[in-house]
Amino acid sequence: MMEPASYNQENPVFKDRWVNYIHSLQKEICSGLENLDGKSHFVSDSWQREEGKGGGGISCTLSEGNVFEKAGVNTSVVYGSVTDTMRRQLEIEGDNWFACGLSLVLHPLNPYVPTVHANWRYFELTDQAGNITDQWFGGGTDLTPYYLFEEDVRHFHRTLQETLDPFGKELYPAYKKQCDDYFVNHHRNRETRGVGGIFYDHLRVSETNSLERLFAYQQANGNAFLPGYLPIVIKRKDTLYGEREKEWQEIRRGRYVEFNLLHDRGTLFGLKTNGRTESILMSLPPRARWVYNHRPPVGSEEEKLLQVCLQPVNWL
Amino acid sequence: MMEPASYNQENPVFKDRWVNYIHSLQKEICSGLENLDGKSHFVSDSWQREEGKGGGGISCTLSEGNVFEKAGVNTSVVYGSVTDTMRRQLEIEGDNWFACGLSLVLHPLNPYVPTVHANWRYFELTDQAGNITDQWFGGGTDLTPYYLFEEDVRHFHRTLQETLDPFGKELYPAYKKQCDDYFVNHHRNRETRGVGGIFYDHLRVSETNSLERLFAYQQANGNAFLPGYLPIVIKRKDTLYGEREKEWQEIRRGRYVEFNLLHDRGTLFGLKTNGRTESILMSLPPRARWVYNHRPPVGSEEEKLLQVCLQPVNWL
Repeated sequence: MMEPASYNQENPVFKDRWVNYIHSLQKEICSGLENLDGKSHFVSDSWQREEGKGGGGISCTLSEGNVFEKAGVNTSVVYGSVTDTMRRQLEIEGDNWFACGLSLVLHPLNPYVPTVHANWRYFELTDQAGNITDQWFGGGTDLTPYYLFEEDVRHFHRTLQETLDPFGKELYPAYKKQCDDYFVNHHRNRETRGVGGIFYDHLRVSETNSLERLFAYQQANGNAFLPGYLPIVIKRKDTLYGEREKEWQEIRRGRYVEFNLLHDRGTLFGLKTNGRTESILMSLPPRARWVYNHRPPVGSEEEKLLQVCLQPVNWL
Repeated sequence: MMEPASYNQENPVFKDRWVNYIHSLQKEICSGLENLDGKSHFVSDSWQREEGKGGGGISCTLSEGNVFEKAGVNTSVVYGSVTDTMRRQLEIEGDNWFACGLSLVLHPLNPYVPTVHANWRYFELTDQAGNITDQWFGGGTDLTPYYLFEEDVRHFHRTLQETLDPFGKELYPAYKKQCDDYFVNHHRNRETRGVGGIFYDHLRVSETNSLERLFAYQQANGNAFLPGYLPIVIKRKDTLYGEREKEWQEIRRGRYVEFNLLHDRGTLFGLKTNGRTESILMSLPPRARWVYNHRPPVGSEEEKLLQVCLQPVNWL
């Protein structure tokens, strides 16, 4: 795996430590998923931004595995001058910006295994002299099951709560709510994309939050990803399924597409600012289906899943 | 088929004639497609707008046919008071609005048969006294093949040219260009959705265009739909195909989804103004597929199709 020549190894400022962490996390997650899959391997695709724009990324994708039908684990390290559009749209000030993050979406083959998404990012603004004028962290993870196993959802949420609690008992409930509010298909009667997780942004250094503490918080989240998700995969990956379950999975994946293309701010911002389309859209499922006015049978397992998407649940 | 109680049968003003035409065209098109399909039938779903909003529609959908995997032929007759949002976003003036149109998208089963879209609409604004303050027509049709047969594309475009020529030789080239400029996946290196057709809007009464002439123009377009499309279906529907062609069809249908959810103004306006989601999204394909960084083999039939999407062609 090549690292983009996007930061100065000689000068270990904070952003370099973040980049190193993100790249090692990418390797750790890909390796954990590959081991579990046992068939397909991640293919690493290194890309640079075009036209003298700074930075690039590493897209790691796996397809047609035993366990994962399509998986993408991307990192990017990008930077540039702050443009007027950015000043206006993002309400930021500074002369230069820097962003680095890891973004992943895993679409399993077996409809009893949930799709999962996670993202952890760091954003930094500097003035002409290179002094940091602003910096913040964002991230989150959310689970999209096709069939509801409450114990699986509780395991996912409990892992998040246990990860966040040492940094403040108020964090999990607050970020859980932000997640429920964000991953919503407003045009589908406000149906959520799945059973939620956590979502946070603009975490800045303050009297109570040093940069080291925020870094530790981000690492705790990144490191908790595999323990929060893999046990669910292991438990459900060999469950027998047929055409009915696959059809329902693909219909729900249609809703995933709708959310990502209609509502997801990151996707829309990336596409509109001429980001790398293939890396942005790696989040889209391998297959999706649309059936006019589809309604799952009353009392069915499919309807049970739909119900918890129409009314967010406190899982813990 | 029930007609929404949305206009006054006693008072045959122009909009009533338009509504009658649109409903009879819907029946004619559904019947023509059903006859060709020979297996599945259109299911008619009559709906009303909620919360005291005026009007409704008739969604006719067919699925899992011999020829059509998923087809939707919708009409709607909707009206209401002009809101501040409409005044701002649509730059219109008047107290009340009325809109009626037919919109169809047909997704065939066989990858050698192209997907097609068409829409014809009429919009009217009136003041408090009921006098018309503005009125215009819009419409168009475009073809989305998965494999390129130039003779098919020429037949489709020639039918359009022959339909438009009696109304002005300048129309076909102008509306053909508008179509090429509109159905573009800007985020995909400006790839078009297919091989185009025609697209026009805001056709208003003028010294050279009476209301009757515009009505005749719209009817000519509506009536030319089946003759422009069905011969292509008949020619290709029994072509043998395998998994390779089906995969390519589903990948291209992914691009269809991307256009409709990211760029199509009608879809986005409808969803944002709380339109009927199921009718708006009936345009989405039965199935779509996303493969990371997919590139058709150099020199393949798939690449040949892609090439004409990257550079619009003058077919006639």
